[in-house]
Amino acid sequence: MILKSTFILGGASSGKSAFAEAMVKATNAPRVYIATSQAYDKEMQAKIASHRKSRGKGWRTIECPLGVSEALSDVAEGEVVLLDCATMWLNNQMFANNDIAQETENLLAAMAACKGRVVTVSNEVGMGIVPENALARQFRDAQGKLNQKLADAADLSVFVVAGLPLVLKGTLP
Amino acid sequence: MILKSTFILGGASSGKSAFAEAMVKATNAPRVYIATSQAYDKEMQAKIASHRKSRGKGWRTIECPLGVSEALSDVAEGEVVLLDCATMWLNNQMFANNDIAQETENLLAAMAACKGRVVTVSNEVGMGIVPENALARQFRDAQGKLNQKLADAADLSVFVVAGLPLVLKGTLP
Amino acid sequence: MILKSTFILGGASSGKSAFAEAMVKATNAPRVYIATSQAYDKEMQAKIASHRKSRGKGWRTIECPLGVSEALSDVAEGEVVLLDCATMWLNNQMFANNDIAQETENLLAAMAACKGRVVTVSNEVGMGIVPENALARQFRDAQGKLNQKLADAADLSVFVVAGLPLVLKGTLP
Repeated sequence: MILKSTFILGGASSGKSAFAEAMVKATNAPRVYIATSQAYDKEMQAKIASHRKSRGKGWRTIECPLGVSEALSDVAEGEVVLLDCATMWLNNQMFANNDIAQETENLLAAMAACKGRVVTVSNEVGMGIVPENALARQFRDAQGKLNQKLADAADLSVFVVAGLPLVLKGTLP
Repeated sequence: MILKSTFILGGASSGKSAFAEAMVKATNAPRVYIATSQAYDKEMQAKIASHRKSRGKGWRTIECPLGVSEALSDVAEGEVVLLDCATMWLNNQMFANNDIAQETENLLAAMAACKGRVVTVSNEVGMGIVPENALARQFRDAQGKLNQKLADAADLSVFVVAGLPLVLKGTLP
Repeated sequence: MILKSTFILGGASSGKSAFAEAMVKATNAPRVYIATSQAYDKEMQAKIASHRKSRGKGWRTIECPLGVSEALSDVAEGEVVLLDCATMWLNNQMFANNDIAQETENLLAAMAACKGRVVTVSNEVGMGIVPENALARQFRDAQGKLNQKLADAADLSVFVVAGLPLVLKGTLP
């Protein structure tokens, strides 16, 4: 079975990226890594280095904090994309003051039109106490809505908890 | 199968209300909406308006920030109630300095005695880092305990993640 | 079926401890309680007292904020251990400025070598918004990684939500 689109959701340090990487590697297809994080401080640099080490070699890497939709249109048939992650993409869009509804529509259209398969990683951020910071509340609201749309559009949606999968929709390969 | 009581739990912007609304509408029974939110600021006004728009027409609406137990005793046989949500109800009870244990007991008794079916929506708030604010810690503790009781009392309990259901107990209709 | 090692994960006030206690009691084996919490303030004293009341009598209790690995080596064949919880243990290790990677390795080795069965309780803390506090971010990262390792090492891993189990791995007895 070939899945067109997979959605992997999880909390911080839940093992969601490693789970998604293993899934992409298991396809034995040429793989593309769409990296959305920017190394703007040491904490983020360390995180990016750790993710790079974990996923190993053999990836065509595209760094794009914002232009994910454009990057997806360059993916070739037979390639499998790991988009890691929708949370950082959303964060970058909000920081750039872009129209989130429009960008989300573009992203979903680009995923549907992508010639390769796409595995998208995203964060669950809505299961804590209401943040005191208004921007944080706005972000978790936008992230929750984006996650609903990504999960709805995917053939397979998985919630990763402590490195292990809870299938929300579809069947694990 | 007619469920007496359903419990729908989810994070912020997880699609829990939409999921619960769809479940109530699918019964084709006369429906009652028990609204616990108060429009005390613009953010909440926008949220209430968005929820109202999403659930559409055809609801008998009862606004009750505190008196949910009384409202449930007025529900007629054959009606299906959407109580949205237990989190705001708990918040209002704590703000009013009411006895939470007593109010919870009253609520559970009113649900059991209700002539109609009840679908209750609530928030998962305990999966983030420990809040620095003591009141926030107290709230998440009370919410967690209330969720356990509501889940225990229900025939069907569902954890909604990214708009999709993980069944905790019972069987989806 | 006798499980060597069980991992119970849940949010704050999710009923994870009660779930784990019930599981240990159901074995009818002599039971050991490894308590990692320290009563350093009134809030924690109240929590400890409440947990003690909830689990009832009939436990051999070992208080060890740090030395869990040593305590596990004293467990006799046939005994069942409830380790509650890995979160407080991690917190104590970080507070003591110990090497978390080394301590985690020791803990996992001690669990594997333990003559009795071990049920470990831990907290999910990574599903809220990114904490503003750097130490809190560091803690949730360490907790997430520890949870992945504990879940991986266990025969049975369960995510408790509103008091009810979602099985991540293995089969409930």
